[in-house]
Amino acid sequence: MGCYGYAGKILFVDLSTKKAVAQDLPLDLAKTFIGARGFGAKLLWDLLPKGVDPLSPDNVLVLTVGPLAGTAAQSTSRWFVMFKSPLTGTYFRSVSGGFFGAMLKFAGYDAIVVRGRAEKPVYLWIHEDHIEFRDASHIWGLTVDGSREFLLEETNRNARFAAIGPAGERLVKFAAIVSDDYRTAGRGGGGAVMGSKNLKAIVAYGERRPKIYNGELFRKAVEEQVESYKKNPTFEGFHELGTNNGVYLLYVLGHFPTYNFKQIELENVDRFKPEVLENYIAKHYSCYGCTIRCGKKFKLTKGPYAGLFWDFPEYETHWSFGGNLGITNIEAITYANQLADRYGLDTISAGAAIAFAIELYEKGIISKREIDGLELRWGDPDVLVELVRKIALREGIGNILAEGVKRAAEIVGRGAEKYAMHIKGLELPAYDPRAAKAHGLSLATSNIGASHMIGWNKFEITGIPRKVDPFSTEGKGELAKYVQDETAMFEAAGFCLFPVNSGMITADLLSKLLYAATGIEEFKDTKYLWLVGERVYNLEKAINVREGVGTREHDKIPERILKEPVPRPPAKRQIFELNKLLDDYYKVRGWDTKTGLPTRGKLEELGLRDVASTLEKLGMLPV
Amino acid sequence: MGCYGYAGKILFVDLSTKKAVAQDLPLDLAKTFIGARGFGAKLLWDLLPKGVDPLSPDNVLVLTVGPLAGTAAQSTSRWFVMFKSPLTGTYFRSVSGGFFGAMLKFAGYDAIVVRGRAEKPVYLWIHEDHIEFRDASHIWGLTVDGSREFLLEETNRNARFAAIGPAGERLVKFAAIVSDDYRTAGRGGGGAVMGSKNLKAIVAYGERRPKIYNGELFRKAVEEQVESYKKNPTFEGFHELGTNNGVYLLYVLGHFPTYNFKQIELENVDRFKPEVLENYIAKHYSCYGCTIRCGKKFKLTKGPYAGLFWDFPEYETHWSFGGNLGITNIEAITYANQLADRYGLDTISAGAAIAFAIELYEKGIISKREIDGLELRWGDPDVLVELVRKIALREGIGNILAEGVKRAAEIVGRGAEKYAMHIKGLELPAYDPRAAKAHGLSLATSNIGASHMIGWNKFEITGIPRKVDPFSTEGKGELAKYVQDETAMFEAAGFCLFPVNSGMITADLLSKLLYAATGIEEFKDTKYLWLVGERVYNLEKAINVREGVGTREHDKIPERILKEPVPRPPAKRQIFELNKLLDDYYKVRGWDTKTGLPTRGKLEELGLRDVASTLEKLGMLPV
Repeated sequence: MGCYGYAGKILFVDLSTKKAVAQDLPLDLAKTFIGARGFGAKLLWDLLPKGVDPLSPDNVLVLTVGPLAGTAAQSTSRWFVMFKSPLTGTYFRSVSGGFFGAMLKFAGYDAIVVRGRAEKPVYLWIHEDHIEFRDASHIWGLTVDGSREFLLEETNRNARFAAIGPAGERLVKFAAIVSDDYRTAGRGGGGAVMGSKNLKAIVAYGERRPKIYNGELFRKAVEEQVESYKKNPTFEGFHELGTNNGVYLLYVLGHFPTYNFKQIELENVDRFKPEVLENYIAKHYSCYGCTIRCGKKFKLTKGPYAGLFWDFPEYETHWSFGGNLGITNIEAITYANQLADRYGLDTISAGAAIAFAIELYEKGIISKREIDGLELRWGDPDVLVELVRKIALREGIGNILAEGVKRAAEIVGRGAEKYAMHIKGLELPAYDPRAAKAHGLSLATSNIGASHMIGWNKFEITGIPRKVDPFSTEGKGELAKYVQDETAMFEAAGFCLFPVNSGMITADLLSKLLYAATGIEEFKDTKYLWLVGERVYNLEKAINVREGVGTREHDKIPERILKEPVPRPPAKRQIFELNKLLDDYYKVRGWDTKTGLPTRGKLEELGLRDVASTLEKLGMLPV
Repeated sequence: MGCYGYAGKILFVDLSTKKAVAQDLPLDLAKTFIGARGFGAKLLWDLLPKGVDPLSPDNVLVLTVGPLAGTAAQSTSRWFVMFKSPLTGTYFRSVSGGFFGAMLKFAGYDAIVVRGRAEKPVYLWIHEDHIEFRDASHIWGLTVDGSREFLLEETNRNARFAAIGPAGERLVKFAAIVSDDYRTAGRGGGGAVMGSKNLKAIVAYGERRPKIYNGELFRKAVEEQVESYKKNPTFEGFHELGTNNGVYLLYVLGHFPTYNFKQIELENVDRFKPEVLENYIAKHYSCYGCTIRCGKKFKLTKGPYAGLFWDFPEYETHWSFGGNLGITNIEAITYANQLADRYGLDTISAGAAIAFAIELYEKGIISKREIDGLELRWGDPDVLVELVRKIALREGIGNILAEGVKRAAEIVGRGAEKYAMHIKGLELPAYDPRAAKAHGLSLATSNIGASHMIGWNKFEITGIPRKVDPFSTEGKGELAKYVQDETAMFEAAGFCLFPVNSGMITADLLSKLLYAATGIEEFKDTKYLWLVGERVYNLEKAINVREGVGTREHDKIPERILKEPVPRPPAKRQIFELNKLLDDYYKVRGWDTKTGLPTRGKLEELGLRDVASTLEKLGMLPV
């Protein structure tokens, strides 16, 4: 293709044979799926063998960026990782920021497809057309910060990378993939997939800047984007405190569950107020090409961790390592957060696993002997720090928790499942589904399990673009579908979701940016872009259907959320009305209400006729 | 001067007025003192106000490199820091490696003289002719690794720096100055001097390569040097394990005191054998321009610190954090070592302070309440890690130990001084003076206190260049003077002492390198170079005399070394015969035996007539 916006190449890597082959990006793929998450869905659909063990060499790990990555467009240099998840058994997409995405583009690739398993630990060194499988035995076993020094020294000081730590090597089911600047593709166990392939890191460097189709149009669109960001009412708050601006607010709004979802109240929650948190900020920083600069560095001047300099935990981690464990000690949360980054652990799942263990001990389901003699208590920072380490290194009780709460509950037995807060095996994030029904519906139906970023409901949570009653069940199928498709559309373009969810960016502006950058006529039409979003979402669903984890029976939600009413205002007495919500949702989706399966009609409407045929052959189309 | 070898500039910095002025390097200074440690002695003699409080703005911190720094000559890019020490009250020289020394040269300076005190924390950004006093309030409080990210991002990714951590800021009396690559000018409290000046770091970048006077001669001399290194019998061992090659060997030879010098035996000492230590090595690395590559990185694959990646402790730290505390847990020693590097603490003094505290508690001199309820025990890794932190942050008992063992003993009283193993306030390193008399004599008479690197006696310890009975007192004055002057000579040229002490480099080769690089005729003569060594040594002594800490009564050694015989072979029954050794030494030095003061005759012989006159006016010349 006459390549604008895109790098124009896909790199196919086979670790078993140590072969890497670059192929031209098919124009048709670009048109049909835009890029990034879109490419991931299509490549996995095409390449993932049905029923594959996620930790076998046959699992496929797809790393992608969008057509705007590495350009002047704002917030568009995210890198996406798609794979079959060892945590959920479903299709998975994990995503992160920093500079690695832009660098992949500069190295000359829109997507990297990794298959096979190296005989011994390796890292992949991608230097434009030169691809090397480098021995990684000397860094196998090291944390991300330890590996960092080797990787950059051995390649290029200005290279960027995505690596795993000891957690990924030890196949912790929720091991993360961590970039050189500690941005993580955290969820779903991509780190374990890399670990299972003996792939310690992917390092990239290049100087190939993407060509822009229409420079003048593009410049204007970017100016409009920057203007739109600056006049957005959430811009200032995002800049000042990042996602932490929302911790206290979401607590007040009743979205912030505590003590493993038992409660919605938290002692000393004042410590999460913006005016307290801002005292810890040492530095603002941004991902490649983003004026929001939501990244924060953190300075501790008192207490046992004084002097240590760490990434500031995000909203989610202040919840998973904080509120959900009854902990409000910011220093300990921050320290544990950074340990998790360096070991390469998803903080949401790790925190949920710790909350699960504490509640099991509290309920008398597990004995002190089973938890290595630890005194598991709510609100104890030492428990947090110790269990993060034990999970990452699979020590003692950590070896069980490293399986994720779903499997850990199966191992423990004795009714432990009741306290395992997950959907499809993915631990719940910091939003109580009972307090936001469309948001909860997105979680319940999500193709990757309980991810807060696959359908974050701005209508309900922040009232953007218009306020909707979060407790009502009316029209929530439509709202859930809307944000799921919108998210898929923007992520197919490689966009960060913060500007999307805060209303800084519209489909109209997305269209301008995409067309000006790529010159692809179809991208001029926002209806087409929405169609791609829905197409991507349905194709991801189809992968789950093919894998046998894509029916109504998989769209579950923990019993506690279904049966225990919220004990306090503002969501007092709310439960989650799963069945009613699902009926509405499947109908709006054009899927079969009884089975939750996509219909031939819907798939054909989305240009996925072949997909429909494949599912039909498998007996997985509704009759 | 027609500038060869040297950068040709001295930078005078006044932090109080935020003025920096560069002056041409006087040729006479270069000829008379060569550079590096030589420049430090001369500049301190000239500029240090008599009787200054080491932590006041009037203390002078001199940072220097030698004329071979940044050239192809091997092991010659050390950076030296001279100041009046807050730990000892004496003149002090502290020294380190890495790349910072070469970069100072590339930035265009042979020496930097820092005076005054900034009103608020600053760092100095030296970019060739551009000198900036940059606000450092955002990194004040951070560890060295935390600061690193800011300093390099805010200046130049390829810049190099020397910085302090929380220990220096808190004026811990043995706070270190740490480079970007964690090489430290550890001893004597240079970090506290920087802290007292509100100077967080000195960052340098430049592209000015030193000019060589005679390229062909120089190339040949460097070739000869590399050849000499390679054929040296210690080269291989240094390369394989660095200074750790000697841990077990020196233990066997009886130089390795244990349990605060109470014993000379250590349980599980096998863990320090080269064949065990080499299993931890993940990487060899070198300072600028050195084929020895004695630097090691360390990988822990088991235990509580698994996955963490740290600098390998040197010989001294395996002693101070290991043998001297009864600890042989390599993982804990390594972890504590790196904590110390990141907090900016001298590991020798910190370990000695911990040993002192443990023995006081063991002897019942301090109570559990006074040590924050800790159970201080020999051989307990947790005690080590906890006390390193407490000292660095001046918490509880750490606040007293942070004063160094001499002052801590005064604070405690109750006879604690008996267990404070120091000379002139500087904690003893890993050599038992009783087992090597000339080496011990160097320690006792050293101008900076008990430093192992100011007169390391290769004759006694390794038998280089010829073996001398270490227990005999015969001829030890001469041997002590020889290594002290030799050390001063090589350090005036900016040399690392490892090649000197292992016999890889001779004065003859030094002379060739210096002359070829600088074209200074005097440097052709090795006798002249030896004279400079003695001159530097005597000038440093004169500074101490002027400060009132340079007489025989200051050349003391701990009572335990004087009175308690070594309990085990090979040095069984040895004590340290201080007075006999001192008499011999002063005589050989041409100093007054009764007072230990340098004579006018000796000073004049060394070209230090003005120095003699000054001391005379102060009544500090022997009558």
